This record gives sequence, structure tokens and C-alpha cells, in this order.
Amino acid sequence: MPKQEVPPLRVLLLGFGNVAKAFLPLVANRSEWLARELGIQLLISGIGTRRQGFFVHSLGIEAVSLAQEEQPLPAFCQQRGSSRVTDAATFIQAGRDAGASLLIELTALQPQDGQPALSHIRQALVAGMDVVTANKGPIAYAQTELQQLARHHHVQLRFEATVMDGLPLINLAQFTLQAVGITAFRALLNTTSSLVLSMIEQGATVDDAIQQAQALGIAEADPWYDLDGWDAAMKTTILANNLLAAQIMPLQVKREGIRNLSVASIREAASAGVPIRLVSQAERIGEQVLAEVVPQRILPEDILRVGKGTTSVISLHTEAMGTMTLVEHEPVVTQTAYGVLSDVITVVRQRRNSG
Amino acid sequence: MPKQEVPPLRVLLLGFGNVAKAFLPLVANRSEWLARELGIQLLISGIGTRRQGFFVHSLGIEAVSLAQEEQPLPAFCQQRGSSRVTDAATFIQAGRDAGASLLIELTALQPQDGQPALSHIRQALVAGMDVVTANKGPIAYAQTELQQLARHHHVQLRFEATVMDGLPLINLAQFTLQAVGITAFRALLNTTSSLVLSMIEQGATVDDAIQQAQALGIAEADPWYDLDGWDAAMKTTILANNLLAAQIMPLQVKREGIRNLSVASIREAASAGVPIRLVSQAERIGEQVLAEVVPQRILPEDILRVGKGTTSVISLHTEAMGTMTLVEHEPVVTQTAYGVLSDVITVVRQRRNSG
Repeated sequence: MPKQEVPPLRVLLLGFGNVAKAFLPLVANRSEWLARELGIQLLISGIGTRRQGFFVHSLGIEAVSLAQEEQPLPAFCQQRGSSRVTDAATFIQAGRDAGASLLIELTALQPQDGQPALSHIRQALVAGMDVVTANKGPIAYAQTELQQLARHHHVQLRFEATVMDGLPLINLAQFTLQAVGITAFRALLNTTSSLVLSMIEQGATVDDAIQQAQALGIAEADPWYDLDGWDAAMKTTILANNLLAAQIMPLQVKREGIRNLSVASIREAASAGVPIRLVSQAERIGEQVLAEVVPQRILPEDILRVGKGTTSVISLHTEAMGTMTLVEHEPVVTQTAYGVLSDVITVVRQRRNSG
Repeated sequence: MPKQEVPPLRVLLLGFGNVAKAFLPLVANRSEWLARELGIQLLISGIGTRRQGFFVHSLGIEAVSLAQEEQPLPAFCQQRGSSRVTDAATFIQAGRDAGASLLIELTALQPQDGQPALSHIRQALVAGMDVVTANKGPIAYAQTELQQLARHHHVQLRFEATVMDGLPLINLAQFTLQAVGITAFRALLNTTSSLVLSMIEQGATVDDAIQQAQALGIAEADPWYDLDGWDAAMKTTILANNLLAAQIMPLQVKREGIRNLSVASIREAASAGVPIRLVSQAERIGEQVLAEVVPQRILPEDILRVGKGTTSVISLHTEAMGTMTLVEHEPVVTQTAYGVLSDVITVVRQRRNSG
């Protein structure tokens, strides 16, 4: 790709939790690469959170300089040119008016329906903005609708960070495993359940294990979203739809969490050398794709065995390339932020390709 | 990518060994995908081999129909419109004149200098043809020169299948791990040495192990190219240059094969739970990249331990995404052919992007 003089890229950050906070220093860290390879400079045109308010800046603030602030949000709203708006919808509109062409959607997830992220994404696409999200809900529930909307408005919707963070699973299928014919996958996708199970194996009670996982910042306030397999079911939906060309919804994933496993059975399985883990799997059988999330005993020779601690792993079974496995070792939040940045880069490159 | 009516894609196959032979049925198998997603039909404009001759067809023969022949080469030369030419250079020129826009270079490798593939590739690029190769030599020795040549003539040079077959390592770096900052890798890249070592561990003599590996079609007629670490050094060079932005030649890879290991030490290490494997590794340290191929004892907790039998594995250490690992389970020749097909698809897509 030739270097070219291009206007700065103005983005909106909607949601300012751990991922958004990790995104700013990551952009700063990779700013030289972004300038050299893409010729772009990233400006933040707005930061919005439900608790702390929605702020838009008329010109946009350099991501690199915001990253140096200990408190980027207060720093952002104190800048001359910053103004506060009332709600997310006004925020997106005002950001668009201030020249933002990309919405990064990172609000907290409501697992039942993917809201409010779904509304934010719809609005941005209709307004002609590209959207990058790490939010599983809207993609698991409404990818088809959202992609039709994106196509209609000639914009992009990207969501690499929804599954295995920045490990390029979605992009792998789109850009590098073309025509490979993925027929099935089998994976450990939910960090919390792996961690809780391994702590129980090592002697912790269920409650202790959950509290430790929460203290590590891995389990959510409501741990049962993970432990009942909902998180894994959302990810399995997204992978089935994108890797296996399925058209399924999260409720079509057969789902069995680890709630009903006794502590004794968990420890016995581990002692017998076949520890139990929450496995996500899907398989194309003719026109159908069968997907499930289910606790399984992992045999010693099973490649999923490499998924120790918080490590995620997925095996892809393909027609043309046999079986291949990808492992993400003990990810931290920077990995999710990298997934977002990777999507931002793809958005920029695809704009140029189609331009 | 929108479907579009496009002329058929005419390609030349230079070299007709196992990979080329596996390529034809693979194209036939994926022809529906190629038609649906890219709108292309693949025609073979020429097949050339040093032993059996160089043949060009004036219109090109459908890859799909050639794939149905038990002996594709005789079938190709018996077609009306087929003509025999004297040598590889005439073959490339005649193929170009017959409308071929892509050379697939799969001739046998001379490890010392990458010839004759290097000359073939140079000629095709200068003639304005895109080139896809599975040939390590020309890429390890002359990637920079060849890519300059390709840029100058506005054509592409792709070589995914040179390392880990069709596992998308090169494309991963180019298309999906953008800005990730790969700082180091560590890998098992040479199947023959892994297999020979594991057979020795199980009681075989060195000669027996080599013969068995040859009988399986894995070791070459000269097994020492693999066992002395040359194959791994070529692959390490290619990965260092493409993943770590090094500028090294194969002789700059510190290379130690398994020739000097005693059978006793190999078996003792395995009995002690730390089997020896030929490890390829490279690391960026400031402006320098240090690369080596060296036998190492693989600890039980080492991720390379998953590289059992003929399985290849690579761990990438990155600035933005921590460590990730890719595993190619017990590949067969179709995997290499898939790497070639994957490059052909990328060539077609990139032509459209830049057109």
C-alpha cells in the first residue's frame, strides 16, 4: 500500500471501560506504525459513557496526547471545544457532525438482547459511519440485519474482538483462509469458567473460586453469565455464523453450563487426568449447523489441553487444510484493545480498496 | 466483494510434482467457491517439467476437467491446441503469449542458491505475470530483489506455502496482525527431523528412521537437507524477514542440525520427559534480528510439546497481543496445495483492489 497524505481519522469512543482505556495507550504505542504504514493520525472526536456523560469535541483530540493523561475522560471534557450532550443518540449525531467517520462501540453488554449497543450501531451505520465493536450481543443477535444495513449505507461493520480478543479469527476466515471450507470447530472460549474450574480442582470452593476470578478482573459482577455458558454461547453463535456460514441465534446453541457440576465430580475428573472444561463446538452437517456449549472431560491427548489457566484455544477442521489450532496465551485487556485497533486498521484499508 | 463477470484466469504450472498434482483436484473441489465468490474459472495454459517436457495450450484447459484425468500431464499434451516447447524460458514466454497471467512455480529446489526457480520467477515478473510459489529457495535468498522487481512491473509475488504449507503465516502478518509488533517466534518447522527423532526415541536406528520417513514420503532422497537444519534455516529466514522485518540470508541463521546427536542422548532425553526437537527461533533485539535453528530439550510445559509426529507449531511473541500459537496438525500434501490456492485467490483479490 503506497503512503499517502490523508486527513486524520476521527473516531467516537462509546463506552469507556477497561477496553477503551487500554485502547488509547495502544494507539499511542502503535502511532508510528499507523503514520508510516497508513499515513493516519487518530483523533478522538467524542467519549461517551452512561455514568460520566457524553462529550464531543469540535475538532477532535489526538489519541496520542489523550493517552498520556492519567484520567483521559476528564482531560477530554476540559479541553476547549468540548461540549456535553444529553444521551448516546445525540452523541453519535454530534460526533458525526464534528467529522467522526468511525464509531468504536464498547458499552456494557446486556446479554438478553444486545442493547443498548445494538441501537448505537444501527444509528451510526445509518448515519454513514463505519463501526467497530467488541460487543458480542449485537453481533450474536443481529449480525445479518446490521451487515445489510452497513452494505446499504456503504459502510463497514467489524467485530474481531468479540471472540478471543485480538486473535484474528474473523479476519482469518475473511482474508486468509479463503475457500478452505471450515466444517467444524471445537474451542475453549470462556476464560472465567476455565479459571473457576481449575481453582476448584486445586481445592477452592465454588464461591472462593468465583471471588478470586472477580478479584483478578476476569469474572463479571454476575459470574453466572459465564458459568452458565451464556458468554460461550454468544461467541459460539458468532463463530458458527462467520466460520461455518450458519444463520443461528444464541438460543439455538444447545447450552449446558457448569452450575450443576458437583465439586467432587470436578476434582475427581481432574485427579483421573481428564479435567472438565466448558467446550464450545459447532459442526456443519449438510445444510444444518449444530452448535453447543457443554462441559467435557478433556483427554490428555486432546489439543484443548493446552488451554491452561485463562488461555483460550480453538481447533478448526477444514476440507482443504486438515485441522489447525490457534492458541491465545493468558490474554489481558490489551489483547481486546488490539482486536479493536486491528479492526480500525482494516476499516481504513478497506475504505481505500473500495474507494 | 461483488460478483462480477470476469474472463477466466489462465495459469502456468511449472513443476509437476506432488504439490502440483494435489493442486488440480483441490481447485476442482473448490471450483464452486471460486465461481461463486470470485466469479473465476481456472484454466491451465501450460504444464512444464524438466523430465517430461514443457507444454503450452493456446486456449487453456479447464483445471476442473484436467483434475478428472488419472494422468493430467499426458492428457494435457494430447489436447488439440497443445504444443511442446524446448525449455522453461520458452515455456513462460509462450504461456504469456497464450494469455496466462499467473505463474505457479513448483519446481524442485536446489537449496544452495534457489535455482532454477529464481530465474523462472524473475522472468515471469519481468514479463508482467503474477507469481505464486511454494519454493523456499528463491524467497529465502532473494525476496527483496524479487519484490522490487514485482513492484516495478506492477505484479504480485506470493509464497504462503513456503512455510507451514497453507497455514496462513505470511498472510496473517500482512492482512490480520497489522501493527501487532511481532518481536520473536519459536517453532517446530521441519517435519522430517521431528519424525526421525520420535522414531529413534521409539527404538529405531538413525538409518531405519530415515528410511521410514522416506517411505512415508516425508523425508527427501537426501535426508540431510532436513536433518542438518537447512530446510528449517530457509523457513526461519523467510519468517524472520516477513514477520520480524529482518533482512537476513539463510547463512546468517545460526544452524545446528541433529546429525551430531547420539542415539543414546536422544533416547535419554525422551525418557527424562524432555524430548529433543529441532527448534527454529528468531528474536528482534534493537535493530538486529538473531535467528537460529538448534536442537532443544522440550520441557513438559512448553507449548512446542504439541508438535507431535509431523505436526508443526509456531508461537509468536508480540507487543500488542502477547503470545499466540498456531498449530498445523499432521499436514499432508493437500495442505501445501491449499497454500498455493490461497495465494492464487489473494492475487485475484488484490488485482481487483488495485485496479
